[in-house]
Amino acid sequence: MTFTQMLAAAWQKNNSLLCVGLDPDPAKFPAHLKGRDDAILEFCTAIVDATADLVCAFKPQIAYFAARRAEDQLEALIAHIHAKHPGIPVILDAKRGDIGSTAEQYAVEAFGRFQADAVTVNPYMGRDSVEPWLAYPDKGVILLCRTSNPGGSDLQFLDVGGPGTQERLYERVARLAGGEWNTTGQIGLVVGATFPAEIARVRALVGDVPLLVPGIGAQGGDIEATVQAGRTADGTGLMINSSRAILYAGKDENYAAAARQAALETRDAINRYR
Amino acid sequence: MTFTQMLAAAWQKNNSLLCVGLDPDPAKFPAHLKGRDDAILEFCTAIVDATADLVCAFKPQIAYFAARRAEDQLEALIAHIHAKHPGIPVILDAKRGDIGSTAEQYAVEAFGRFQADAVTVNPYMGRDSVEPWLAYPDKGVILLCRTSNPGGSDLQFLDVGGPGTQERLYERVARLAGGEWNTTGQIGLVVGATFPAEIARVRALVGDVPLLVPGIGAQGGDIEATVQAGRTADGTGLMINSSRAILYAGKDENYAAAARQAALETRDAINRYR
Repeated sequence: MTFTQMLAAAWQKNNSLLCVGLDPDPAKFPAHLKGRDDAILEFCTAIVDATADLVCAFKPQIAYFAARRAEDQLEALIAHIHAKHPGIPVILDAKRGDIGSTAEQYAVEAFGRFQADAVTVNPYMGRDSVEPWLAYPDKGVILLCRTSNPGGSDLQFLDVGGPGTQERLYERVARLAGGEWNTTGQIGLVVGATFPAEIARVRALVGDVPLLVPGIGAQGGDIEATVQAGRTADGTGLMINSSRAILYAGKDENYAAAARQAALETRDAINRYR
Repeated sequence: MTFTQMLAAAWQKNNSLLCVGLDPDPAKFPAHLKGRDDAILEFCTAIVDATADLVCAFKPQIAYFAARRAEDQLEALIAHIHAKHPGIPVILDAKRGDIGSTAEQYAVEAFGRFQADAVTVNPYMGRDSVEPWLAYPDKGVILLCRTSNPGGSDLQFLDVGGPGTQERLYERVARLAGGEWNTTGQIGLVVGATFPAEIARVRALVGDVPLLVPGIGAQGGDIEATVQAGRTADGTGLMINSSRAILYAGKDENYAAAARQAALETRDAINRYR
């Protein structure tokens, strides 16, 4: 089954556009986990098991594992998701971007080593930095387009349209990535929830291409505006990510139950506007 | 000593603008190394020891290690360079790019875990994706600007100048990164050797900011044009990278000697035009 098919099935089965981001920061873990060698894996698997029937995807962020020499725990976490929650796609948030044989190595890292179903990729180096990922047609390749941070505007909002035509850089990325680069139909885009008008613009440019939307919750993005701007005609098309607001909803041994409650409320808040 | 100071000292001491890129591909290793658990480390340390007096920097590319679960060998390799060849800076080629707490984790990965002296960073997410790296003022932060691949033009060559003014995206990155973002003086830029006119343009925009220049050798960039376009007034300012042409100059047990010979010839070819 391809990433796109898995995602469509998870949208339906769990009636959810919610993606839970797994950004494990040991400094924020409940006290009983601190100091354990496998604390990251233990924390994340408990979150996963508590929320898997409420999400359309999980998105581990590799930096949190790499900073702590915990790649083995990331491998084990993804294997756990595949084994215990088959059908829920795993997006490796790595924002890799390189060319030729180096990009091929990154693809081996994401899809071979970590067995991710999709990966986030930075488009700054252009088409030949995207193509090596497309050699894995079952996988999703989700390109940064319009990011949710303030500095996202520094480059992405520049007008590249030429005389008499306005086209922002993020619109060009959307047009290329959703169009001529997307020969295999496996591309998705990252568009931040902090800019609903730009989510709508990207949706208009790319048809039904899936959009990964960070920025609700801690970053202040509005759920209603995000859903109304980004949903497709059938009320799907979105992976709306929440990380910290779910992972750290509880501070003690009941953190997984608190995460479930937060995920349930977020899923339902999203569904209210589909 | 800061990265900038280390680099300046290495330029002088080794009379070299050559950076040797460490992209270890076991499929290309000499037969006697194949199948060994530590083949990557063994291969790379032999290259390092054979060329350390001929270079201004080493640049390991993390994807080659990550694809093979060999982060431990990357740690050992960088520790080896620091121990045996003090004063030669190590640039971790990782092209990371993210914001806030995630960028902080990537900085821990590069500077804490791997003990790199500098790192390559992707600027697509803007200023707040660069700032977390600047919390390490002794380290170098080398931003992608104009990359050497054909697709580099897809976005980097777009005109963002507005009515009546031409400014390419890579020029804007150079202007921001070499100017208002570079409050700490620790920023460098990646500019490909395949576009000498654009190296000259970047040099004109950024003063003495160090430029990391991939693309000579296998990618076809011209050494004379690169040096003349990119050198500073004192004949430095460049880290001209060569990877495959040096690593795989020899195919048998004498590969390290062959690498030394290739590095010597490349260093001297560069020096002819300084």
